[in-house]
Amino acid sequence: MKCDSKVSVVMEQTLRLFHECGMPMSDVDMINCDGPEMHDILMKAKPRMTLFTGSSKVGEMLARDLHGRIKLEDAGFDWKVLGPDVPSDTEFDFVAHTCDQDAYAYSGQKCSAQSVLFAHENWVEKGLFERIAEHASERNLEELTIGPVLTVTSKAFMKHRDALLDIPGAKVLFGGKLLKGHSIPDVYGAWEPTAVEVPLSAFLDPKTAALCTTEIFGPFQVVARYNDEQLDDVLQALENMDAHLTAAVVSNDVNFRNKVLANTVNGTTYAGIRARTTGAPQNHWFGPAGDPRGAGIGSPEAIKLVWSCHREIIFDETVPEGWTKPKQT
Amino acid sequence: MKCDSKVSVVMEQTLRLFHECGMPMSDVDMINCDGPEMHDILMKAKPRMTLFTGSSKVGEMLARDLHGRIKLEDAGFDWKVLGPDVPSDTEFDFVAHTCDQDAYAYSGQKCSAQSVLFAHENWVEKGLFERIAEHASERNLEELTIGPVLTVTSKAFMKHRDALLDIPGAKVLFGGKLLKGHSIPDVYGAWEPTAVEVPLSAFLDPKTAALCTTEIFGPFQVVARYNDEQLDDVLQALENMDAHLTAAVVSNDVNFRNKVLANTVNGTTYAGIRARTTGAPQNHWFGPAGDPRGAGIGSPEAIKLVWSCHREIIFDETVPEGWTKPKQT
Amino acid sequence: MKCDSKVSVVMEQTLRLFHECGMPMSDVDMINCDGPEMHDILMKAKPRMTLFTGSSKVGEMLARDLHGRIKLEDAGFDWKVLGPDVPSDTEFDFVAHTCDQDAYAYSGQKCSAQSVLFAHENWVEKGLFERIAEHASERNLEELTIGPVLTVTSKAFMKHRDALLDIPGAKVLFGGKLLKGHSIPDVYGAWEPTAVEVPLSAFLDPKTAALCTTEIFGPFQVVARYNDEQLDDVLQALENMDAHLTAAVVSNDVNFRNKVLANTVNGTTYAGIRARTTGAPQNHWFGPAGDPRGAGIGSPEAIKLVWSCHREIIFDETVPEGWTKPKQT
Amino acid sequence: MKCDSKVSVVMEQTLRLFHECGMPMSDVDMINCDGPEMHDILMKAKPRMTLFTGSSKVGEMLARDLHGRIKLEDAGFDWKVLGPDVPSDTEFDFVAHTCDQDAYAYSGQKCSAQSVLFAHENWVEKGLFERIAEHASERNLEELTIGPVLTVTSKAFMKHRDALLDIPGAKVLFGGKLLKGHSIPDVYGAWEPTAVEVPLSAFLDPKTAALCTTEIFGPFQVVARYNDEQLDDVLQALENMDAHLTAAVVSNDVNFRNKVLANTVNGTTYAGIRARTTGAPQNHWFGPAGDPRGAGIGSPEAIKLVWSCHREIIFDETVPEGWTKPKQT
Repeated sequence: MKCDSKVSVVMEQTLRLFHECGMPMSDVDMINCDGPEMHDILMKAKPRMTLFTGSSKVGEMLARDLHGRIKLEDAGFDWKVLGPDVPSDTEFDFVAHTCDQDAYAYSGQKCSAQSVLFAHENWVEKGLFERIAEHASERNLEELTIGPVLTVTSKAFMKHRDALLDIPGAKVLFGGKLLKGHSIPDVYGAWEPTAVEVPLSAFLDPKTAALCTTEIFGPFQVVARYNDEQLDDVLQALENMDAHLTAAVVSNDVNFRNKVLANTVNGTTYAGIRARTTGAPQNHWFGPAGDPRGAGIGSPEAIKLVWSCHREIIFDETVPEGWTKPKQT
Repeated sequence: MKCDSKVSVVMEQTLRLFHECGMPMSDVDMINCDGPEMHDILMKAKPRMTLFTGSSKVGEMLARDLHGRIKLEDAGFDWKVLGPDVPSDTEFDFVAHTCDQDAYAYSGQKCSAQSVLFAHENWVEKGLFERIAEHASERNLEELTIGPVLTVTSKAFMKHRDALLDIPGAKVLFGGKLLKGHSIPDVYGAWEPTAVEVPLSAFLDPKTAALCTTEIFGPFQVVARYNDEQLDDVLQALENMDAHLTAAVVSNDVNFRNKVLANTVNGTTYAGIRARTTGAPQNHWFGPAGDPRGAGIGSPEAIKLVWSCHREIIFDETVPEGWTKPKQT
Repeated sequence: MKCDSKVSVVMEQTLRLFHECGMPMSDVDMINCDGPEMHDILMKAKPRMTLFTGSSKVGEMLARDLHGRIKLEDAGFDWKVLGPDVPSDTEFDFVAHTCDQDAYAYSGQKCSAQSVLFAHENWVEKGLFERIAEHASERNLEELTIGPVLTVTSKAFMKHRDALLDIPGAKVLFGGKLLKGHSIPDVYGAWEPTAVEVPLSAFLDPKTAALCTTEIFGPFQVVARYNDEQLDDVLQALENMDAHLTAAVVSNDVNFRNKVLANTVNGTTYAGIRARTTGAPQNHWFGPAGDPRGAGIGSPEAIKLVWSCHREIIFDETVPEGWTKPKQT
Repeated sequence: MKCDSKVSVVMEQTLRLFHECGMPMSDVDMINCDGPEMHDILMKAKPRMTLFTGSSKVGEMLARDLHGRIKLEDAGFDWKVLGPDVPSDTEFDFVAHTCDQDAYAYSGQKCSAQSVLFAHENWVEKGLFERIAEHASERNLEELTIGPVLTVTSKAFMKHRDALLDIPGAKVLFGGKLLKGHSIPDVYGAWEPTAVEVPLSAFLDPKTAALCTTEIFGPFQVVARYNDEQLDDVLQALENMDAHLTAAVVSNDVNFRNKVLANTVNGTTYAGIRARTTGAPQNHWFGPAGDPRGAGIGSPEAIKLVWSCHREIIFDETVPEGWTKPKQT
């Protein structure tokens, strides 16, 4: 077991807790080192299996160097699609609240955060964007409903925002500014809950697709609207993405839902008017579906699929009385 | 689907048969080319999953270049261990016959052939080697119980035999000579069913271990004897092997059996006095256990594990009446 | 194995076919006798398990006399509920056709036939009843789309029709008359595809509920309409029924569908706009859900659940070296 | 939920604890009454499922009166068979200790207690009976390794002992006397750990079989010896028993073990040299195998099999574009 050295002190105590609870001392070796040293160890030890849940860049490198003896957590650029069926007011309120929480709770610092929202125009017309903006504006430092961003500086945020705004037709829906009146050091990020709307075509244009689908591990999302004729473009945008961790299909229209589910491969996918990207730790299967390296954590099923395996042992014990040798072949 | 170009003509007809039976024309693309061209195609197409059942050398290369998006058939250097419990005469006859068939049926040209036999001295003392020699001597070209070897020439066989005989203490138990009175072309192999006995230590010596565990895809096996004190050496020899396809633990002694099973990782392992390495196509799981690339073929379970995957789709459809927005976090 | 003596000659030939295919002669005993004799045999033989697929009356008697060592097929009074969501014209056509086939194909002589239809008024207003009447009127003896009824005479049919028409508000929707111009003997039934509409309240009134839910094994169905306020009455009517074999919830409205599914217990239930009661032999699980006597046939899962069982065998084979006796308790 | 009224006060507190932990108040109704009143309630309420874990006599009555809508715990007359393979001294000690604990721990008052022991003569010759007698003699009131028997009076015990001793060849192996020097009231039982040996034939003789297999819920067992020729008699004795709760096949001889397992139907069966009847609450499946009323408790698997059920819900939602009505049938 090797974790980021910044949190090793916590993990060490956790292991000591496990030992206190009875875990045999020899079940886990904890290794405290940097990535390159760990890479050397893996190359020499040739483990039969490694579970890796860090960045997808390092994950791909390890998959290559370990010749595939690995299970990976996919990266967390998670999408939500709102279908054509805009429901009752209560359900509208529910969906708006869920969008706000998925994107901005914990200041967006969770691998399951909503990174991009594809909203059918029916939702836009009913005022969904305004409603989410309203929720976002209620977030504040006092209640810790917004806070410091650990791994993305304010500068990096502004650079990414500006790059997106260079896309023709892009605009800031809300937020987009730095927080004021705080003492958060510059080494962290501190900005308002932000949504940038881009045209759907930006996800399909090779020049801007990568930019639109870059994960920002903080309170930030990209938004696009689509109409009935553009569903296939949305599906193409989803197919183009490299990361297939969590997803949400917000719709009770079964035909719509079936079409989106059938054409996507995310490991954990919520479907239905209450669908969310976040907040169900019992369902951590990373996907993507069909990739033999896809891993999961947390649930008994996931642990079995990742850490155990199929093995055929056939017991064949009894020679029948009176057996005689047949002809050779 | 790509197969060896030597058998493409057969596979093409098979596909046509599938089409005739109703398989949609678009379900399989057949690609007829050499390995390097196929490698190029894979690098460009980036398939989510590849099942590879060729040589382990190419398998490892593909695992690296495809970053682990692959399932592999392990190579077929299959071992059999005879435990300390020598049973009744009928059972002795059964085991001797099974050893002969596992090693020499189809002239040993099957991925599940018995490549090495570790026999407890109790079996040796009861005359097992002599009995197998007797069975081997009954094999002949007329009845096709011995025949041409497609991928190993007689020259390669003799070279391998001589290399083994250079090990101190090694000797030919039976066979070891080329077949006579036949018209098999030199491009194929033609030799007698052969067993070479080597000391158990040869499997542990880094200088000879690789030689002892080289797969010869023909009627050839290596044999070693061991006693009660040497079981751990046998287990070490099994652990050292690279290939973990099929295995057999010939014993009804449950403690012995449990020890061998617990310390080995072969995908398909037969246990019990009737255990064999060969002949149960319903149980093709290649292993090794614990390697996430381990694949299987043939059984519904294997097809599901290789070609399907776990995917979490959570339907969450109904907002309770009277729902109201909770506090943000 | 005992079947109705009318079809014993067919079953005997089937068994002979099984023997020809290799089934051991001793696997099945065929018993050819009447019910009372078979009852005596069961009482004396005390079989560990009996699967009974005849009438529910005899089924209940056997369940009592065998002290529950039995699995039962529930009786086939199957319902279909059409939800509030009336779909496109193509889907409307599909549902009308399915209703016609479910109720009248094979002249309604199948355990999965649609016996009662609860139609939301939206469907009635769009003309569903007229459309089904149209389909029914196309059925004729020449094409064998209507035919003789083996177990219900024309007289019994007319008596049942008249009893239903005595319910205030009941009326014949279509059919209701005997067939003409045929040579079907009086011992069989011969009548037009028939639907009698009754008020929904008739299913809730203890005086008429049993009458409305009497199975007629022929081309006959009862129909009732309901509106949004009456869904709970429909659910109560379904709960009151004794038979819970097959059912269909024709709706793509997920909230409606979830409510009906959550409040019913039929073994095999189709849900969705294409839902039917009939025609999927791969899914024969009889239910009702929650009744430990519920049985299934046909699918591997059903066969395992009915004819096999859970059994815990724990192998505990190895006393650790150096074990010493602990204190007694 | 209804339990014996003697322990209702405990169960009520348990329910209150469940409520405290969050169990909804409406999930369980507790009914405190005598058996006949409960019987009336069941007849009127017609529950879809009842789990009954009391006496087999009442169980059979309820199975009949509820028409099989019931799952039963089988009665606890549990057997142990010691195979022909007498192992090492350590293993012999282990088995002797396990026999003592299975029969006499908690003064034998557990449904999984060893009620009868069939010992191969190899074990008898090695002194197993003497060893068990030795262990039994160490039990005493001071350490509570023997104690009062709640449901069998000393008088009833002596009557049963005497009845068994009337069988020709029967004898007390050890114990058989009442405890002295205690203040246990006469309404309870108080006797020494006791074993009565009877000839194997007594289990096959219809005049004595029922007597030999009567459950005494206290520190008492029946013992019989057998030799290689008598294994089929032992199997016949096991088959004759009415109760099939727990069993143990103490043997590492796989052929012996397979034969006994294949010919018995107990729900929970331990096999191997460490096999016991008692003490593994995680494995409570009552059996008998093949009886559809067989129930289990305690394990997730058992709870699912008893309280949940197979239900087929088939979602069929999408009519293909361009669908047209086929011909009726």
